[in-house]
Order: sequence, then structure tokens, then C-alpha cells
Amino acid sequence: MTSHPRKDPLHQPGQEFDVPIRVRYFETDGMGVVHHANYLAYFEEARVETLRKLGASYKVMEEEGFFLVITKVELNYKKPALFDDQLIVRLRIERMTTVRIDHGYQILRDGILLVDGKTTLACVDKSGRPRPLPDLLRPTSARQHLGGFETTA
Amino acid sequence: MTSHPRKDPLHQPGQEFDVPIRVRYFETDGMGVVHHANYLAYFEEARVETLRKLGASYKVMEEEGFFLVITKVELNYKKPALFDDQLIVRLRIERMTTVRIDHGYQILRDGILLVDGKTTLACVDKSGRPRPLPDLLRPTSARQHLGGFETTA
Amino acid sequence: MTSHPRKDPLHQPGQEFDVPIRVRYFETDGMGVVHHANYLAYFEEARVETLRKLGASYKVMEEEGFFLVITKVELNYKKPALFDDQLIVRLRIERMTTVRIDHGYQILRDGILLVDGKTTLACVDKSGRPRPLPDLLRPTSARQHLGGFETTA
Amino acid sequence: MTSHPRKDPLHQPGQEFDVPIRVRYFETDGMGVVHHANYLAYFEEARVETLRKLGASYKVMEEEGFFLVITKVELNYKKPALFDDQLIVRLRIERMTTVRIDHGYQILRDGILLVDGKTTLACVDKSGRPRPLPDLLRPTSARQHLGGFETTA
Repeated sequence: MTSHPRKDPLHQPGQEFDVPIRVRYFETDGMGVVHHANYLAYFEEARVETLRKLGASYKVMEEEGFFLVITKVELNYKKPALFDDQLIVRLRIERMTTVRIDHGYQILRDGILLVDGKTTLACVDKSGRPRPLPDLLRPTSARQHLGGFETTA
Repeated sequence: MTSHPRKDPLHQPGQEFDVPIRVRYFETDGMGVVHHANYLAYFEEARVETLRKLGASYKVMEEEGFFLVITKVELNYKKPALFDDQLIVRLRIERMTTVRIDHGYQILRDGILLVDGKTTLACVDKSGRPRPLPDLLRPTSARQHLGGFETTA
Repeated sequence: MTSHPRKDPLHQPGQEFDVPIRVRYFETDGMGVVHHANYLAYFEEARVETLRKLGASYKVMEEEGFFLVITKVELNYKKPALFDDQLIVRLRIERMTTVRIDHGYQILRDGILLVDGKTTLACVDKSGRPRPLPDLLRPTSARQHLGGFETTA
Repeated sequence: MTSHPRKDPLHQPGQEFDVPIRVRYFETDGMGVVHHANYLAYFEEARVETLRKLGASYKVMEEEGFFLVITKVELNYKKPALFDDQLIVRLRIERMTTVRIDHGYQILRDGILLVDGKTTLACVDKSGRPRPLPDLLRPTSARQHLGGFETTA
């Protein structure tokens, strides 16, 4: 597919995507701030919207039998987000292998870091068995399709 | 199945079941009270626990292809429930037909009514088409299995 | 404030507002559709965004001591919404009094009605006592501020 | 208060508490499993119920101006939990300082590990400033009140 085969797919420079999210009342808790579990839903929304920006659709991926399941999460809470805040979720693709994607996240309000975190996703089939990521998301095809997931020799 | 056929299945006296629910922090919102959407989850939990008391399992029902979907909801909010409140959800079977169940609900704290409501459920198959309720939940079999869903002549 | 006092504030023609909402994965349930409780969060989001379109802010209202609490809800579920659906919540102001607002809602996907409903809100102060709506939202001031909440003689 | 002062409060042997949680339908997602964000709500419920077993109440703590806020979370997902699963959340107190508690968690179904994780909580006052934990939860008082948070010489 290319005359410039990737050499080190695991060290490709990370791409970043900013996804805006408005805090909804339902997401706040009795402390008057966003409940800490909801940031995982924000991360998920940022992944789905990033796929959309890349021309992919997580909905279509599932219809085609590719399921991205979470295997690991880390979150650091610095400052609370509040109802009605206009947040930016800055998503960074940290690392991709045939069956796995690591993302990094920063949640910002007016440029101030509120929460950062990481997730690891594994690609599985409907029965939960590991399955290679679809071509669109695999590092080797990313160069053609996504424009810049890696540097080539 | 019986020599005493039911005569008026739609007017059988309602049975009531009390299901205790403890309010979780996650369920409160920025007003410091249970967010109003969560009472629908409480109603749902009460239905599942009531089925369990009756010897049925909603999980098994789904495995056997019976899905109970909500078609109608009414809720009246009188007083707020708070974090850590020990609530009682009083569920009453109001009406049952071959494919439909109407429930009434009262949510109580120390005997005080906080919320009441009604739901209508329809039984469908996996593709969403109407399907008769399983025998265990049908009015005509309720007498044998469930003890008292109806009065007989 | 005006030489054309409102005559029949309760029969003013209803205004409608369309608020787009994208279904998030977190909002789906084991049936593969949006869990029925989440439509109440969609209604709430539509109210907040409608206030924003009208130049108001629910966040500021709360800061100024006006809390809109739900006292009544009705929902009719026609068809399920699915993950990633781009929905329209069509909100209509049905009726306003000094302390109360009734809204009607339709949730649409590609023009197809999925869910409709109604809510009643009451305006209260921080301690939960009824309080007149802020001027911006009161029928008599709506004419000046909001442009068209009512027809005048 | 005691003739056997604690010597090394940070290395006291950890206590473990098992809290049963039944998976509710609302907590499942379109993959037919518990959505990964909800395990943080399970951890939270386990902390609240553990405090209750220890004779404390998180609700009373907040009323007295002690707020436990999450500063860090780690989660590892091994196997999915399903609707209606009867889970055990095994909570372990890993480390306590004057203003901070580290917990470890295992979520088990029939003895099988589904999810494990860690959280760090900080004690703050209503305005978010660090505040020493209440006596009941401080390591030096734990021996008298809680029976066994540490070994004494």
C-alpha cells in the first residue's frame, strides 16, 4: 500500500484533538460539582467525536463487529468542573498496536487543567475475543487515511 | 389449567410489594437532592426485585426472549429524597393484560410520601414486536404461581 | 414598563425551540437503546439551552437564588433512540404563571417522533419555598425581554 | 487515651470490608455489560457502607463540614459484570494520613475478580481547603473507635 513502510509504529508522534463538552445538570452531585465518575463518560464522548473527525464512526465499527473495550483507566482530579462549564477535552493518541490504543486526556476550562487521565482500549469481537483494529485505525494504514499518525523514513 | 376460570382479569385486586433502596451519592445533583431522573431507575429496580420475590427473574426473561419495554411514565414529585436516605419503593400491580403491565409506585421515607408515579410496560421480543407475557406473569397463571393476583369465583 | 399590559398571560401562544442532542454511549442500556430515564436529562438539557437562547442562564438564576424544581413529569415512549443518534428536542412553552412553567417536548430523529412528554417546574428559593420566577422569565416581562412570549392587544 | 501509642500509623495492616452490590439495569450499556464509569459509583457506595459498618456516617461528616473528595483513581478491567450480578466490592484501607485515605478495591462475582482499582481521597472543608480527617477516621483514634486499624506494641 505504500513504498515507505512504517518502521516504529509505537513511537509515532501523538495527534491531539479538542472536543468541547458542556456540563449538564444531571452530571453534578451533592457537592455542587461534576461527579468524578462522569469524566469517564466525557473521555468516551471525546473518543467517539475524535473518530468522527477522522472520518470513522464507532457506531459503524460496532455494526461491523469491532468493539473497543476499556481495560485500564487512570484519572487525576485537580479542580472541580461545575454545572454549565464549557469544557475542552484534549485527547491525545499516545500509542497504538494492532489490538490496543492508549489515549491521554486533559480536561480544560479556560485553559486551566481540571482533570487529566489515561485509558487503554482493546479491540475485541462480539464474543469478547481480541481482534485486530479495523484498517482505518491501525497504525500502518493511518498514514494514508488519517494523515500524520506517524513519521515515515 | 384451572376449574375456576378468571372472570375479570383486568380488575383483579392489586398486590403491593415494598422494596428498600438506599440513596447513593452518585444519584444526587447540584441541588443536594436526588436528581429527578433517578426515580425511574428506582422504579425499575423495584420491578426487578418484585419479580425476584415472585420467583421470577427479569434476567432470565430476557434470555428467553421476553423484553419489558417502557411505553408510558408519570411522576409526581412531592418532596426531595436526600443522600443516604433509606427509601421504600411501594410497587403496586395495577393492571395486567396479555402483553402489558401497569404499575403504580410510591416512594416513602419514614412513611412520608416523596414521589408517586405510574408506568406502563409492554412485552416485546428481541426485534421489538409485541409478544405475550411469559406464563408466570400472565394474569391467568398468576393465581397458581403467584398466589393472589386475582380473586376467583 | 409598558403601556400595553398583558391581558391573558396564560393563553399566550407557545414558543418552540429546537435543541440538538447527540446520544452518548453511556446513555444506552443493555437493550442497546437509550435508557428511558435519560430522556429526562435530555429535557433538562433542552430547558437549559433554551434559556441560553433567550439570553438567560440557569446557572446565574441559581446563583441569584432561583431554583426550578420539577413537580410533575409525563413521558410517552414511541420508538427507541440509539447510540450516536442525532436527536432534536423540540421544547414548547405551554403555560407560565408567576411561579410555574409547563413545557411540552418532542424528541425527533430525522423528523420521526421517538418520545414526547411534559414537565411542570416550580420556582423556589434555596430553602424550597415558592418564589416568583425572575422577571426575565415572567410572562409580563417576557414581551419586552424575550420578544413574543405573548400577543398583546 | 491509650498507654500504647501507635508507632507507625502509615504502615498499619489494612482492614478489609466486603460490600454486596446488585447490578441494576440502568448501569448496563449497549454492550450488555456494566458501563465502565459505574464501577466508580460502586467504589463510592462501598466506602459509604464501610463507614456505616465502622459506626460513622458520610452524611453526618458532610453536615459537620468534612468533605472527602477524590484526587486520584486507577481501574483495571478484567471481566465484565452483567445485569443482575450479585457482586462483592472488597474494600481495603491501604494508607491513612491526617488528610488523606488510600483505598484498594476488588470487585468479585462468585470469587472471580472482575475489576480492581485504587482511589485517593482528600479531606477538605466546604470551601475546598484541606482539613484534617475527623477523629473517628484518623489513624490515631482508629484503635479505640474502630477496633483494629493497627497493631499495638
